Amino acid sequence: MSSFLDKLLGASRTNDTLLCVGLDVDLRAVPSHLLTQAEPVLAFNRAIVEATADLVCAYKPNLAFYEALGLEGLDALRKTLACIPRDIPVIADAKRGDVGHSAKAYAQGLFDYFGFDAVTVNPYLGRDSLQPFLDYGDRGIFVLCKTSNPGSADLQDLLTTETAPGRGCRALYEVVAESVREWNTQGNCGLVVGATFPEELTKVRRIAPDLPILIPGVGAQEGDLAQAVRNGVDAKGELAVVNSARQVLYASKGQDFAKAAREIAVALRRAMNVARRQGV
Amino acid sequence: MSSFLDKLLGASRTNDTLLCVGLDVDLRAVPSHLLTQAEPVLAFNRAIVEATADLVCAYKPNLAFYEALGLEGLDALRKTLACIPRDIPVIADAKRGDVGHSAKAYAQGLFDYFGFDAVTVNPYLGRDSLQPFLDYGDRGIFVLCKTSNPGSADLQDLLTTETAPGRGCRALYEVVAESVREWNTQGNCGLVVGATFPEELTKVRRIAPDLPILIPGVGAQEGDLAQAVRNGVDAKGELAVVNSARQVLYASKGQDFAKAAREIAVALRRAMNVARRQGV
Repeated sequence: MSSFLDKLLGASRTNDTLLCVGLDVDLRAVPSHLLTQAEPVLAFNRAIVEATADLVCAYKPNLAFYEALGLEGLDALRKTLACIPRDIPVIADAKRGDVGHSAKAYAQGLFDYFGFDAVTVNPYLGRDSLQPFLDYGDRGIFVLCKTSNPGSADLQDLLTTETAPGRGCRALYEVVAESVREWNTQGNCGLVVGATFPEELTKVRRIAPDLPILIPGVGAQEGDLAQAVRNGVDAKGELAVVNSARQVLYASKGQDFAKAAREIAVALRRAMNVARRQGV
Repeated sequence: MSSFLDKLLGASRTNDTLLCVGLDVDLRAVPSHLLTQAEPVLAFNRAIVEATADLVCAYKPNLAFYEALGLEGLDALRKTLACIPRDIPVIADAKRGDVGHSAKAYAQGLFDYFGFDAVTVNPYLGRDSLQPFLDYGDRGIFVLCKTSNPGSADLQDLLTTETAPGRGCRALYEVVAESVREWNTQGNCGLVVGATFPEELTKVRRIAPDLPILIPGVGAQEGDLAQAVRNGVDAKGELAVVNSARQVLYASKGQDFAKAAREIAVALRRAMNVARRQGV
């Protein structure tokens, strides 16, 4: 078992939770009283982390929101990582994917420079493009499989001529799930499947019974939480990392935003735990 | 015609060239005398740009190499962009792809903050994930189609059950090429096809006769230059953007590196022009 998986399961069991909080900071949505501070993104993240660290199994900053703010945003990301307790894994939602030597440079940036515990990657370029990430055996590699957006149908649902015994043609996302199971020689792979596609989540869990599945798309994207949890967990009711970002972060735009975020996180954790204990 | 395409064709015609130089800086490969400078990446890039700006139709920094260096690397990238003459388009080789609101944040970072003229994106998440990029009608959007690495076969060559009249099942990369032609409502799309796959390049050019094709994989990746040019250009012998990075950048590791880079760039431009004038 990879040390990432150890850390993920450790946090999940200690905090009795499947909740991952997505640190996707949008300056137009944060409480206005923070905007007068020197480092509003950092101040916001630090408050959210302090209010929720005992309720989550992971944090997941999406790099897009930091890159949108340029160097200042990435500096805030670096400082945010330093605020997160060491026993909570942090997943870089980066969706990177490039040919070998470039992929290696991306992995260096995310793992060596920033120090993330895990990363999301895009499989379109194939196994050799993911190998530099996979080679970091102590980090987690979540491969995009069936994403939460409606447009995921455009390519991911295409039927391929690859067949499985008794199941006919497989959709591209199923081929990805099966490929990742093969590529997982170091035990550090996971998959990403949107909560918005509960049936596909069931299929992927069946293909990969032992892999952690990162599940975005509950809350603002309207995936059904209980169904996502039931369909996403493994046989022990674990290894689903269910992400909520906007619903937690922007629970209140007032001075009480951190307290409001905590209340939502408590409610989400409870709802997920009820669902997973019914499901197994 | 998008203003990106105007700028690309303008530079290509003014400099009579299809050559794009990939600004993929690796500090282990740059001349050692630069490493004592305060900003070695910037010093290297500035010298390469000054030595080659009249020979290229575009520059293409791959963001991976800058991210590997952290904030300092991205600062060097920002300053590099300021050194590039305004009439030469700069393509961010970023291979981004994310769901709608995150994709929008990536587009803001690359187009608004950095000011790139064009970007490479990954199609795996479908049309809605690319829409925030496509909405920048004045910028170029190069969609990964058939990438230059051997592993591109893993998914991109999978046959789908989508059929074309008289041609049977189409490979995933062909479906991508046809989809991009449909998604190109603002005239700002292009495709990425590796020089290492000349037959696929011919097929993609046939599917998309009017789109610019970015062609990496000559030089260090050993794609045949003349064949890539012949198969990649449009009916007028234009709209192929043929990238060379390491071959130009690291032509010499001595004090004469910029002069050596220029000599290689001159030779590449000439070889490409010979090939395209034979090909049409």
